[in-house]
Amino acid sequence: MSRLKMGMVGGGIGSFIGDVHRKAASIDGMIDLVCGAFSSSKEKSLASAKELGISDDRAYGSFEEMIKKEAKLPEEKRMEFVAIVTPNHMHFPPTKMALEHGFHVICDKPLSLTLDEAIELEKTVSSSGKVFALTHNYTGYPMVKQAKAMIAKGDLGTIRKINVHYLQGWLSTAVEKTGQKQAAWRVDPKRSGIGGALGDIGTHAENLIEYITDIKINAIAADLTAFGDGRSLDDDGNVLLRFENGAKGIMSFSQIATGEENNLGVKIYGTKGSVEWYQENPNQLIVKWLDKPKQIYTPGGNGTYPESSAYVRIPAGHPEGYLEGFATIYRSFAKELLGVKNGKDISTNPDFPTVIDGVRGMKFIYAAVESSKNNASWIKMN
Amino acid sequence: MSRLKMGMVGGGIGSFIGDVHRKAASIDGMIDLVCGAFSSSKEKSLASAKELGISDDRAYGSFEEMIKKEAKLPEEKRMEFVAIVTPNHMHFPPTKMALEHGFHVICDKPLSLTLDEAIELEKTVSSSGKVFALTHNYTGYPMVKQAKAMIAKGDLGTIRKINVHYLQGWLSTAVEKTGQKQAAWRVDPKRSGIGGALGDIGTHAENLIEYITDIKINAIAADLTAFGDGRSLDDDGNVLLRFENGAKGIMSFSQIATGEENNLGVKIYGTKGSVEWYQENPNQLIVKWLDKPKQIYTPGGNGTYPESSAYVRIPAGHPEGYLEGFATIYRSFAKELLGVKNGKDISTNPDFPTVIDGVRGMKFIYAAVESSKNNASWIKMN
Amino acid sequence: MSRLKMGMVGGGIGSFIGDVHRKAASIDGMIDLVCGAFSSSKEKSLASAKELGISDDRAYGSFEEMIKKEAKLPEEKRMEFVAIVTPNHMHFPPTKMALEHGFHVICDKPLSLTLDEAIELEKTVSSSGKVFALTHNYTGYPMVKQAKAMIAKGDLGTIRKINVHYLQGWLSTAVEKTGQKQAAWRVDPKRSGIGGALGDIGTHAENLIEYITDIKINAIAADLTAFGDGRSLDDDGNVLLRFENGAKGIMSFSQIATGEENNLGVKIYGTKGSVEWYQENPNQLIVKWLDKPKQIYTPGGNGTYPESSAYVRIPAGHPEGYLEGFATIYRSFAKELLGVKNGKDISTNPDFPTVIDGVRGMKFIYAAVESSKNNASWIKMN
Amino acid sequence: MSRLKMGMVGGGIGSFIGDVHRKAASIDGMIDLVCGAFSSSKEKSLASAKELGISDDRAYGSFEEMIKKEAKLPEEKRMEFVAIVTPNHMHFPPTKMALEHGFHVICDKPLSLTLDEAIELEKTVSSSGKVFALTHNYTGYPMVKQAKAMIAKGDLGTIRKINVHYLQGWLSTAVEKTGQKQAAWRVDPKRSGIGGALGDIGTHAENLIEYITDIKINAIAADLTAFGDGRSLDDDGNVLLRFENGAKGIMSFSQIATGEENNLGVKIYGTKGSVEWYQENPNQLIVKWLDKPKQIYTPGGNGTYPESSAYVRIPAGHPEGYLEGFATIYRSFAKELLGVKNGKDISTNPDFPTVIDGVRGMKFIYAAVESSKNNASWIKMN
Repeated sequence: MSRLKMGMVGGGIGSFIGDVHRKAASIDGMIDLVCGAFSSSKEKSLASAKELGISDDRAYGSFEEMIKKEAKLPEEKRMEFVAIVTPNHMHFPPTKMALEHGFHVICDKPLSLTLDEAIELEKTVSSSGKVFALTHNYTGYPMVKQAKAMIAKGDLGTIRKINVHYLQGWLSTAVEKTGQKQAAWRVDPKRSGIGGALGDIGTHAENLIEYITDIKINAIAADLTAFGDGRSLDDDGNVLLRFENGAKGIMSFSQIATGEENNLGVKIYGTKGSVEWYQENPNQLIVKWLDKPKQIYTPGGNGTYPESSAYVRIPAGHPEGYLEGFATIYRSFAKELLGVKNGKDISTNPDFPTVIDGVRGMKFIYAAVESSKNNASWIKMN
Repeated sequence: MSRLKMGMVGGGIGSFIGDVHRKAASIDGMIDLVCGAFSSSKEKSLASAKELGISDDRAYGSFEEMIKKEAKLPEEKRMEFVAIVTPNHMHFPPTKMALEHGFHVICDKPLSLTLDEAIELEKTVSSSGKVFALTHNYTGYPMVKQAKAMIAKGDLGTIRKINVHYLQGWLSTAVEKTGQKQAAWRVDPKRSGIGGALGDIGTHAENLIEYITDIKINAIAADLTAFGDGRSLDDDGNVLLRFENGAKGIMSFSQIATGEENNLGVKIYGTKGSVEWYQENPNQLIVKWLDKPKQIYTPGGNGTYPESSAYVRIPAGHPEGYLEGFATIYRSFAKELLGVKNGKDISTNPDFPTVIDGVRGMKFIYAAVESSKNNASWIKMN
Repeated sequence: MSRLKMGMVGGGIGSFIGDVHRKAASIDGMIDLVCGAFSSSKEKSLASAKELGISDDRAYGSFEEMIKKEAKLPEEKRMEFVAIVTPNHMHFPPTKMALEHGFHVICDKPLSLTLDEAIELEKTVSSSGKVFALTHNYTGYPMVKQAKAMIAKGDLGTIRKINVHYLQGWLSTAVEKTGQKQAAWRVDPKRSGIGGALGDIGTHAENLIEYITDIKINAIAADLTAFGDGRSLDDDGNVLLRFENGAKGIMSFSQIATGEENNLGVKIYGTKGSVEWYQENPNQLIVKWLDKPKQIYTPGGNGTYPESSAYVRIPAGHPEGYLEGFATIYRSFAKELLGVKNGKDISTNPDFPTVIDGVRGMKFIYAAVESSKNNASWIKMN
Repeated sequence: MSRLKMGMVGGGIGSFIGDVHRKAASIDGMIDLVCGAFSSSKEKSLASAKELGISDDRAYGSFEEMIKKEAKLPEEKRMEFVAIVTPNHMHFPPTKMALEHGFHVICDKPLSLTLDEAIELEKTVSSSGKVFALTHNYTGYPMVKQAKAMIAKGDLGTIRKINVHYLQGWLSTAVEKTGQKQAAWRVDPKRSGIGGALGDIGTHAENLIEYITDIKINAIAADLTAFGDGRSLDDDGNVLLRFENGAKGIMSFSQIATGEENNLGVKIYGTKGSVEWYQENPNQLIVKWLDKPKQIYTPGGNGTYPESSAYVRIPAGHPEGYLEGFATIYRSFAKELLGVKNGKDISTNPDFPTVIDGVRGMKFIYAAVESSKNNASWIKMN
C-alpha cells in the first residue's frame, strides 16, 4: 500500500490544531506530510518544516506558492491533497485554489468565513471533481457511530427529543488580551466570522446531532450573549431546536462556562429508548430503554454493531481518544482518495463530513445570529 | 421534646406521595400522624387508618369533616397541622379551610390548580397567622444547600449561566390509559391545571435554580409539546431563561424522555467557578474552578460549610436519599411550629419553601403556557 | 396495625449509631421507642429521654434496671424488644439478660467481645425462644438483594472470584487522642475485642460477601497492621480468601485509607457474568456479562427481581440511602415479631442477619488475628 | 529533525500488539518503520510488508536474517533500532542478537521467558552500550505521571497502603481452543513462561505501583489459580504485598473476571492523601485528602504538575488514550536515541521502563509462582 502525500496550509509549530491534524494523519500509517505553507512568514514556515523533518524546498511562504509549485512537481513527488488548518477567514481562499489546481482538500471547520463563501465552495467542490472533507472530528468516535447505527436501525424508535451541549470555560476571562493566539482570532469577527462560540463549537454540536440522528434541524430560536467585556462576538448561546420530523430539543454552548474543559454531550430520546454520550469520556455509550435495564456500550465491546466496531483500533477496554476520532476522518478520507486513484467514482455519501455539512454549519451560524438579533425568534434552517 | 400532631388529606394506602410524606415526617422523631381524610370515600379512609395504626374515630371521609371535627377536639389531642398530599386541584380547598380554622399547613407542590388560587392563598396565609410550607423537597438535599451557600458567599463569583433539566420517561407510552392512577390525573387538566410535565416537574426545576442562586428568572421563552397521543397537556418542554442579573440559561423537562427515571440536574456557572448536581446521585456536588482542579464535595465531608453540614444526619460516606431530603422540609417546618408554639414570631424567611415560592411556581406555569401559545415568545415572570 | 414497643440500651444523645437505630426504626412507622437505658449515668439517660420525648419514668440508669422494671410493667405498656447500640463489650451482657427475661433483641455488630460469648449467645437465643437480629445493615440495600437474587437464580453461573474492600480514612491520624469518643473505644481492646478495623468494618465485608453469594469462606490468610502510633489493634488489613466452592478472592479493609469516607465495595465474578456494587452510590448495581453489554440496575428499575424491588420504598430514580437500608433490617425484624405475636413460629431462615451470622463474624475476627500472628498463614473458618 | 528508522520482529498483519507498536511509534512523527521480520514465514512477512508500504527487500523471514542483513546496509539506510513484538519466548533471542549487533531495542513485556534470560539480558544491555526500553505502556499515561510526581513531592505524605487490580474476562471460557491466537500462546508455558495472567498482566500491575510510588515490593504471598479446564498456567491470582518502607497492600489480577475488559486500577494511600486511577477512564486522577475535598485532576488541567503536563499532546478535556500512552514510551525512547546519536551518554535513569524493570517483573513472576506452590507463603522479591 503506497502512502498518500499531504501538504499543509497553516499549522506552524506551536499551533494547536495543526499538530492535531498531523498526528491524526499519521496514526494509521497511510499518509506522509511532504510539504507545507505552515506560516505566512517564509522564515517561520521554514523553521516549522525543519522541525517536522521536511526539506527546505518544500516549505512555502504562502498557500499560493505551495499550490503553484507543487502542481508543477512530477506526480510521484507532488502532494496529493492539502490539509487546511488556518483560522476561519483563511479556509476559503486556499480551499478554492487547491481544488481548482487539482488537489483534494481536507479542511478544518467551520467551512468558511461567510455563508456566501460556503455556497460558492459547494459549487467548486462539485465542479472540481476532487474530494473534500471537513474535520467535524467528533463524528469519528466509535460510540458516536454506534449511536448513529442504533438509531438508523430503529432500535430507539421514533426520535422525539434531542438535547446537546458544548461547554468550555477557557474564555471565562479576557485571555484574548493576554497574547493568547487561540483566543485572539476567535473573538475577532474578521478572522472568525459572525459567530464566536457559535461558529467554533456550536457548529460541532449542530453537526453531531444531525450526524447521529440523520434528522435535520428545521428551525431554531437562539439567544446569544457576549459576556466578555468588549467582545463583539458571542461567547455563549442557548438555542431551542425544532426538527423536520417533529422532534424538539435544546442546545447550550459556551466558552465562559467556568471550569469546563471540553464538555460536549448529547442525549437523544426515542419512543423505545435513548442514547447519551460525553466527549470527555468517549469510550462509553449509555443506552436507556423503555423496559430493560440501562446499558453501557464500549468500543468493540459486547453487543456493538459492525458500524461502530469497524472503527475501533484496539481491543475493548483500551481507551481511544480525541486523536483517534480525528484520525478516523483522515483514514476515511485517505481510503476515498486511494479508491479514486484506483479509478473509483467519488462517493456521493462518503464516510466523512463533506462540503454539504459545511454549508449546513454556516446556515446554522447565520440562522442563530439572525434569530438572536430578533430576540430569539424562530428562523428556518432550510 | 413533645411531638407535633399531624393530620393528612389524601395519601390513602397505595398512594405514592402520601407514603413519602409519612416517612419523611417520621424520620426525625418530631411528628406523629394522628388523623387523616385519606380518601374521599369514608370506607377507604378507614381502611387506610387501620393500616396506619390510627384509631377509627380519627379517620375522616372528607377534609371538611376532618378540619371541623378536629377543631373541636381538646388541644392536647387535636391535630396541630395538616399535610395535604392530594392531586393539584385539591390543594387549594383544604389548605384554605385549614388555615382559616387555625391549622398550620404543609402542602405538596404545585401550590394550586390556578394562578388565581395561588394569589388568594398567599393572602390567606398572611391573614391566618399560620405557618405554611410547600414541599419543594429537592431543596432539602445537603449538597443543594452547599451549592446555595457557596454562591451566597461569592465563591463562584457573578453567576452568568444556569442550565437545568428534569427528565423522566414514565409517560413515554400511554400509561394513563392503563389504569395507572398517578398518570391519569397528571394528564387531566381538571386535576392538574394548565401545565402537565410543566407543573409536575418543571416547577421543581424552576424552584431549584432560584433557590440555589437566589436570582430570579426575569423572562422565559418556552416550547411545550404534548407528544403522547390524545394528550392535551404538555409532556415535554424546552425553555430559554433570562435572569434578573443578566445571566442566561436553559431548561429542559420531559416525561417522555424514555429510559430516564428521575433525572433532575443543574449546572450553574459563575465568573470564578461552577457547581453541578444530580438528584439521582445526590451525595456529591461537583465544583469546577477557573484555576484549580475540580472538586467533589460530599455531605458532611471535608470543606463543606455549616450551611450544608447542619442538614446531614449521618457521617460522610453514608448516603442520604430522597426521603431524607424530604424529611428536612418536615423537620424545618416542625422546628418553626415548635418555635411558634413557644411564642416566637412566624419567620419571615423560614428554612423551607413557602407560599411565595408557590406563587412563583404558578407564575412560571402560566408564563410558560402563554409563551408556548405564542410560538415561544418571551414572557416576563415578574 | 399496632406498633411495636422498643427499648434501647446505649445511644444517648450525640451517639452516632444510636441515632441511626432510632431513625431506622421509625421510618416505616411500625415501631415506637418507649424506654431506654441511654447511658450508664442515670442523669445522662434522663436528659436523652427528655430530648427524645420519653417520659422520665422510662429512662433507666442501667440495662439491668430497664430489663427488670420493664418486665414488671403490664403487657400493653411494656417494651417488646430491646435495641442494643453500645460498644462491643456491652453487647453480650444486655443481650443475654434481655433474652432471658423474655425480650426480643436487635443488636449492633459485631455480636460480642469474644468468640466464647458469641457461642454462648447462639445457645441463649435458641433456648430463649425469642427473636434476635444483628444489624449488618448493608444487607438491607435493594441492590445488594438484587445481586443476591441474581446469583441464587444462577444468572452469573458458577462464582469463581470475590473481591471486597471496605476503606475508611477517619483513623488516619490519632483522633483517639483528641477526645473523639467513636475513635477512643474502637482502638481499645477492652471495649472492641481483639479486632480493630477488623471487627468494626472487616466483619461487614465478610458478612456482605457471604450474604450475597451464599457461599461460605473456607479459609483466610490475613495480614493485619496497626499503623497508628501506639495502637494495639489493627487499623488496616489485607486478606486472601478461599471459599468452600473453590472460588478465590481478596479482602482489603482499612481505617487509615486517608480521604476515604465509607467506601465499601464488592465485585463478584461468575462463569456467565459479574456484579459490582459500591455503598457510597448504592442505588446502582453494575452487571457485566460474558457476551452482552454491561447493565446498570437501579432500585425498582427495569428488569429488577421481586427479591429486590420488594424492598424499595419509592419509585426508581428516587435515591434511597443508608438509613433506608438500615430500616429494612428493622422492618423485617418488626414483621417477624408481629408474626410471632400472632402465633407464628420463629423463622428458621428469617429476612435479617441472625446470631448465626454473628458467630460467623466472630470466627472471622479470630481466624484473621490468628492468621496474622502466624505471618498470614491459612486458617480455616469452619 | 530527522526521523529514526525502526525494524520490527513479529507483528504481522492481524497481530494485536504489533499494530499497537506501529501506531504508537508513528503518532509523534519521529519514527519510520523501514523493515521487518514480521513472521517466521518469509511469505507472510512479505505480505505484511506490502500492506505496510515497505519494500520487498526489507521484508525478512527471520530476525536473524534481518539483523545480519540490516547490519550490512549503509548507515543512512540501515534500521537504527528493533521493536520486538513477539510472544514471550521470542523476546530473548532477537533482543540479545540485536544488541550484540549494535542495534538499540524496544521490547514488549514481560522481558523474557525465564528469569535466567532476564538476568543475562541485563548484562547484555549493559555491555552492549545500546539503549533498551520495555513497553510497560501504562506508565505513559499523564495521570500516572501526575500521581508519581505528587508522591515524589511528598504531597501524600508517607505511603502506607497500595491496592492494585488488573481484571480481564477474555479467558473466562476456553477461547484458546477456538483457534484464537492471542489466547493460544498465553496459556502455553512454552511460549508464555511459568506465569499466565501473572506474566501477561500481573507484571503490569507490579510495574505500575513500583513506578508510581518509587517504593519496592519487599515480599509477596500469592494464591494463583488456573480456573480454565486443562490450563496449566494461572488465569487468576490474589497477592498480599509488603513494601520495603513498611507499607502493605494487595493485588488481584484475573483473565477470568467475566465481563471485565481491561480494568487496571490502583489506589495508593499516604498519611496526607491518596490517589486513585483507572486505565479504562485514564483521563482523570482522583485525589482524596485528609482535610480537603476530593479533587479530580485531568491531563493538562488546572493544578497539574509539569511532570505530567509535559506528556499531554492536546488541551485539557480532549481525551488521550491507550495509543498515546504507548506512544509516550516510544517518544521518550526516540528522544534518548536522538541524544545518543548526538553524542550524549546513555541515561542512567531514562524516562521509560528499562531492562531493570524487566528483571524486576521476572522476579515478581518467579516469586509469585514459588509462593503459590508453597500455599501462599511469603517470598522475598529482593
